[in-house]
Amino acid sequence: MRGKEFIAPLRLNKHTMKIHNFSAGPSILPQPVLKQAAAAVQEFADMGLSILEISHRSKQFSAVMEEAEALMRELLGIDDRYSVLFLTGGASTQFFMTAMNLLPQGKKAAYINTGTWSTKAIKEVATFGQADVIASSEDRNFSYIPNGYTVPSDAEYLHITTNNTIFGTQFHELPDASCPIVADMSSDILSRPITLDRYGLIYAGAQKNLGPAGTTIVIVRNDLLGKVDRNIPTMLDYRTHIKKASAFNTPPAYPIYVAMLNMRWVKEQGGVAEMERRSIAKADLLYKTIETLPAFECAAEQGSHSYMNATFRLTDASREVDFLAACDQAGISGIKGHRSVGGFRASMYNALPLSSVQHLVDVMNAF
Amino acid sequence: MRGKEFIAPLRLNKHTMKIHNFSAGPSILPQPVLKQAAAAVQEFADMGLSILEISHRSKQFSAVMEEAEALMRELLGIDDRYSVLFLTGGASTQFFMTAMNLLPQGKKAAYINTGTWSTKAIKEVATFGQADVIASSEDRNFSYIPNGYTVPSDAEYLHITTNNTIFGTQFHELPDASCPIVADMSSDILSRPITLDRYGLIYAGAQKNLGPAGTTIVIVRNDLLGKVDRNIPTMLDYRTHIKKASAFNTPPAYPIYVAMLNMRWVKEQGGVAEMERRSIAKADLLYKTIETLPAFECAAEQGSHSYMNATFRLTDASREVDFLAACDQAGISGIKGHRSVGGFRASMYNALPLSSVQHLVDVMNAF
Repeated sequence: MRGKEFIAPLRLNKHTMKIHNFSAGPSILPQPVLKQAAAAVQEFADMGLSILEISHRSKQFSAVMEEAEALMRELLGIDDRYSVLFLTGGASTQFFMTAMNLLPQGKKAAYINTGTWSTKAIKEVATFGQADVIASSEDRNFSYIPNGYTVPSDAEYLHITTNNTIFGTQFHELPDASCPIVADMSSDILSRPITLDRYGLIYAGAQKNLGPAGTTIVIVRNDLLGKVDRNIPTMLDYRTHIKKASAFNTPPAYPIYVAMLNMRWVKEQGGVAEMERRSIAKADLLYKTIETLPAFECAAEQGSHSYMNATFRLTDASREVDFLAACDQAGISGIKGHRSVGGFRASMYNALPLSSVQHLVDVMNAF
Repeated sequence: MRGKEFIAPLRLNKHTMKIHNFSAGPSILPQPVLKQAAAAVQEFADMGLSILEISHRSKQFSAVMEEAEALMRELLGIDDRYSVLFLTGGASTQFFMTAMNLLPQGKKAAYINTGTWSTKAIKEVATFGQADVIASSEDRNFSYIPNGYTVPSDAEYLHITTNNTIFGTQFHELPDASCPIVADMSSDILSRPITLDRYGLIYAGAQKNLGPAGTTIVIVRNDLLGKVDRNIPTMLDYRTHIKKASAFNTPPAYPIYVAMLNMRWVKEQGGVAEMERRSIAKADLLYKTIETLPAFECAAEQGSHSYMNATFRLTDASREVDFLAACDQAGISGIKGHRSVGGFRASMYNALPLSSVQHLVDVMNAF
């Protein structure tokens, strides 16, 4: 029965065929969000103006900022001990801003190295203090989440990348640490509930589960700030943005607006608990297919599989081009693996329906 | 004749009446740009996907980045000695990044203080070197562009704010300096041709003449880089972004796309020479009206008037509320002055038609 669904699009012209968007990021957004986002570019809040051309201090846009913060707090259960900020610069900027704001000179922070982004985060610490890399999965091309390490008691914080977009691995439980955890959650924020108390700071580029590219969320426990001595440029000090509710300077208005719409959608769908249920259902379907079919194999190791990004290969690598062509013909977009891993990667963020995963599975079965 | 144009909107319901957008920023964008920008949120480049949900490394989006850079180079006549970057963080981030990248420890840079943004830029230098404030118009609430100063021969660069959005003043000729000029052009970029050779670095938040909020343009002369000794975090080093053509990390894709559309529009209209011609026509009309009508007076001094933002007051301040109400009724939006100056401010960026200025002038005449 599913087979018919799969064959049908092949007869359609590419321009009219439904595209199944498995892009790793910027990535799929819900259709109702896109519809409203497009409408606001023409006319916003009955103002007779586009959302792109109104003051960030207008009452209409201030309401967007307030709702975005409130939704993030509600969805992840964030209380007043923490600030919620919408900044710019991506996770790449947070790699150094976290150390700059949280790590006193001469002190150390523990890092678990689970891939490209962790490696980049570690590199940025040296200017401010010491990064103690207490565990790494580099030995097997970051194909697993390390185990069996101890977080030193004198670490100011422990930094982890909760989901590794490139390698397709994900922390399924938090490390045992007495210090606060600083987490790069760029590719799995809003995909599951969090245990807030364990975190000192969470950051995420918006362009996966949160919204379009152009804004970066930072959730920071207020009492951790103000403990470093160094000169911090105004724009790089979290306290600047906390004081001004993310509007110290002109914020990236439209990316924040679309992120807000997307959070409304997550809430309407049942919140992050429902997102987690769907993510597990989608991931289970795909991973079981990979395990069942002799032509395919997982790139990441069992137990470390990401619910967001499944990395897999063909056991016969010479057929890769054919599989990519089959995906292309079937309207499956963004499935090519990252060059660091090769093979394929199916990103299954919140907005990707189970039916798209089913469609991919059908293509795999037919292949 | 113009009077009829003016009276008509008053009869319309607010929601259907044409709005004349004098917002200081984020500010008015051309209607054809907004139309195409809205369409791309629904479907981009025949991909069956929104521009918000595609990879920044897709060939379709790479083409946007390339065209944005090429248009900026063409419009402002920028040759290969300079790099053109699309970053984030706003001009506020450039306040410290310029000093961080260009000012060796212990050296000094000259600054002309012409208002709020210059003052903020000056404040950020201290971490990296010395800001020598060689001229300031603070004594008369930044109502003029200073004259009669000498730029020290040992300054690494001279920093100016070419147009002062808040106070309504603008440099109409460049200071005499042997060192390169670093210019915050946030509110007048693309409004007139530039003498490229005089500049070492130009930066501008996009949300005035360039596009929506969310991206910051930096034009930098390559040979000025690499001369400072300090550790610069990867994301704060201009060379990182030059090497990767503004795609070291995920760029703010949609703001860049809309800026690109807007630059296409500027080019179609006749380029920056035509923008300058229109700006002068709009500004002349408004300033002459202010000078003619006894009820109004300019806030900025003669000779320093900005072609972008005209600041003015009522000679009888008690009637301010009435004038704002009259503007509101006539569909004139964003006319209230900044709290630092009071009164009114008419921002006349590229996308604002002469007819909107005429409409405002009609309201002023009728008042």
